Amino acid sequence: MIGEQYLLLPGPTPIPDRVVRAMSKPMVNHRGPEFKKIITRVTEEIKQIYHTNQYVLIYTASGSGALEAAVVNFISPGDKVLAVSIGVFGDRFAKIAETFGAQVEKMQFPMGQPADPDAVIARVKEDINGEIKAILITHNETSTGVFNDIKKIRSGIKDHPALFMVDAVSSLAALDLRMDEWGLDVVVSGSQKAFMIPPGLSFLAFSEKAWQVHQKVSNPNFYWDVSNGLKYLEKGQTPFTPAVSLFQGLDEALQMMQEEGLENILLRHKNYRNMVRSTVKAMGLQLLAEDEHASTAVTSVVSPDGIEADIIRKFMLEKFNIVLAGGQQSLANVIFRIGHLGYVRQLDLLAVLAALEITLSKLGYPVKKGTGLIYAQDYITDRL
Amino acid sequence: MIGEQYLLLPGPTPIPDRVVRAMSKPMVNHRGPEFKKIITRVTEEIKQIYHTNQYVLIYTASGSGALEAAVVNFISPGDKVLAVSIGVFGDRFAKIAETFGAQVEKMQFPMGQPADPDAVIARVKEDINGEIKAILITHNETSTGVFNDIKKIRSGIKDHPALFMVDAVSSLAALDLRMDEWGLDVVVSGSQKAFMIPPGLSFLAFSEKAWQVHQKVSNPNFYWDVSNGLKYLEKGQTPFTPAVSLFQGLDEALQMMQEEGLENILLRHKNYRNMVRSTVKAMGLQLLAEDEHASTAVTSVVSPDGIEADIIRKFMLEKFNIVLAGGQQSLANVIFRIGHLGYVRQLDLLAVLAALEITLSKLGYPVKKGTGLIYAQDYITDRL
Repeated sequence: MIGEQYLLLPGPTPIPDRVVRAMSKPMVNHRGPEFKKIITRVTEEIKQIYHTNQYVLIYTASGSGALEAAVVNFISPGDKVLAVSIGVFGDRFAKIAETFGAQVEKMQFPMGQPADPDAVIARVKEDINGEIKAILITHNETSTGVFNDIKKIRSGIKDHPALFMVDAVSSLAALDLRMDEWGLDVVVSGSQKAFMIPPGLSFLAFSEKAWQVHQKVSNPNFYWDVSNGLKYLEKGQTPFTPAVSLFQGLDEALQMMQEEGLENILLRHKNYRNMVRSTVKAMGLQLLAEDEHASTAVTSVVSPDGIEADIIRKFMLEKFNIVLAGGQQSLANVIFRIGHLGYVRQLDLLAVLAALEITLSKLGYPVKKGTGLIYAQDYITDRL
Repeated sequence: MIGEQYLLLPGPTPIPDRVVRAMSKPMVNHRGPEFKKIITRVTEEIKQIYHTNQYVLIYTASGSGALEAAVVNFISPGDKVLAVSIGVFGDRFAKIAETFGAQVEKMQFPMGQPADPDAVIARVKEDINGEIKAILITHNETSTGVFNDIKKIRSGIKDHPALFMVDAVSSLAALDLRMDEWGLDVVVSGSQKAFMIPPGLSFLAFSEKAWQVHQKVSNPNFYWDVSNGLKYLEKGQTPFTPAVSLFQGLDEALQMMQEEGLENILLRHKNYRNMVRSTVKAMGLQLLAEDEHASTAVTSVVSPDGIEADIIRKFMLEKFNIVLAGGQQSLANVIFRIGHLGYVRQLDLLAVLAALEITLSKLGYPVKKGTGLIYAQDYITDRL
């Protein structure tokens, strides 16, 4: 089969050619003036995307590395932590906290649903003595394609002293997030999502309040230590040799994001989601998430009765060179996930939806070819 | 000034065009068959470079991240650890162990000298009750350009039960290292050195014996957890989203290394060192390291009396676009360091030595132009 692969994962995402060229620049001294310019510039630009005037550090690590950083820098062994989970990544955040000695109380919501804001708020309000030191929550749960209303939850818990810590790895720049305005204390994100660069960098934003908590944290800190990170950032450096080529790519990607404008980027992701969802519905398929909680990064489609989700994915890969994500844990082989995050073209999504229609019809699902497609065309036409 | 920069650091090093092109390939699914092929192949090839049949894991992190991994996976809080330091990176390894609760006894040797094998062996032999749980040592100390005779030290301590843990971040593939034959237990390395790719990946090799120790380790482990790493490696994956483009580059770089042959790579690094050292000596300059302990990765040159090392570096950068490393700690402004590691051409080194001669003469150091250069030409001629 000729032509490039359609990579429709919720990360890694396709890389723009401009970013590839930027990552192909010669190496520079990571303790020299060129790198200083890059890190200073990208840190400022990432702050704008977080809508924060507080602290942002960039790690050479996967997103899960920055989740570990969030835990070891701001939570001490023995701290009581409320972990809100709606899927695999919520579980992961809770597990990291547990690993590093926190007393984790987990509020688990069924996979495919968001956290109930009222339930979370009520639980926090019960804690009149302020025993809960941190609240961990996922913004966009990649495993299900559901997002949490973190604004509402944060606003509801008002002045409870716990640090409000958000895993925004797959949401930042795909979903609206306003760190300072909403009062978020620690927000983690990653490069291979809406940032359009390969995996390998992750971002940790934290508030002045979190910084104060860090001063007294009793978990040992070395690679993830934010004090050290801030000290080096002042010099325009990182404590340890950074992934220079990824920084070069990030610099270019942020330039592209500025050209497009954050509002437009968020709108684009919303449009992609809506087009994918309405087209899939028009095919008669069931979606895992309800409309009002549906992720702008990834859509989980429930495989029709009698057809395994992994058979659909296999067919799409072998016949069309399209890569979709599968389900995890209890959703394995039950759903498939279409990523529409980062540098994805609208017409590519249309092509993939066309291929899905063909696939389903080949696998015996009763769909009239064109049903969904016409819907997608109309969707695009209406927004021209 | 036109033309590319001469980047002569002990990492990051110049990137071969083939590797740049490999890193420019489209993203692939890190849980798919293409990535599985890559990680399986590169892991096997890295084992050959380590000369090991035991375990190798690849982290998305700086080299210092893998040093932290070495500590938290194989050392428990309260463990007595002997840390042998001959410079900045020896200090760092010791500091990480301390951070994670080890009782560190440090053997500090002066900067510019190697560890005295007899002294280290004697200290370990005193420990008749086997209280020392781990010995930490740097193979090539990048801050001074001195390497330790780890083979001799390891052989001298015989069957003392401590884990023998080596920081080989800047030495692997530049200096001979035979993990299994020499009996090394944990060996850390990094991508931006002799491996000719940008920073962002690091390697952790460990022995069966270390693996046994890991089963009982009491430091909490998440991002660095080797059990989890091995579990995923079996599936051809990493626990967390890896730096895919760097893996693609590593795959190509290892192909190039196989074509050149490990013996030839080691010989090339030795020749570069010898050429740089003899040329610098011919200019009348003093070298920090003695011949028999001199690094094949980087050469530290003592700045002549009355000329600050940083002035030489500044002149080289401004007039010739040559980047050299400075000295650290007590050697700041006292030495400058010429990296000759990875993808460096012999004639580039000659050009840089020529520029150094010009620089010194401009700054008032009495060197007759051509003195060193002719030596370098002869050195190259003799080996044609």
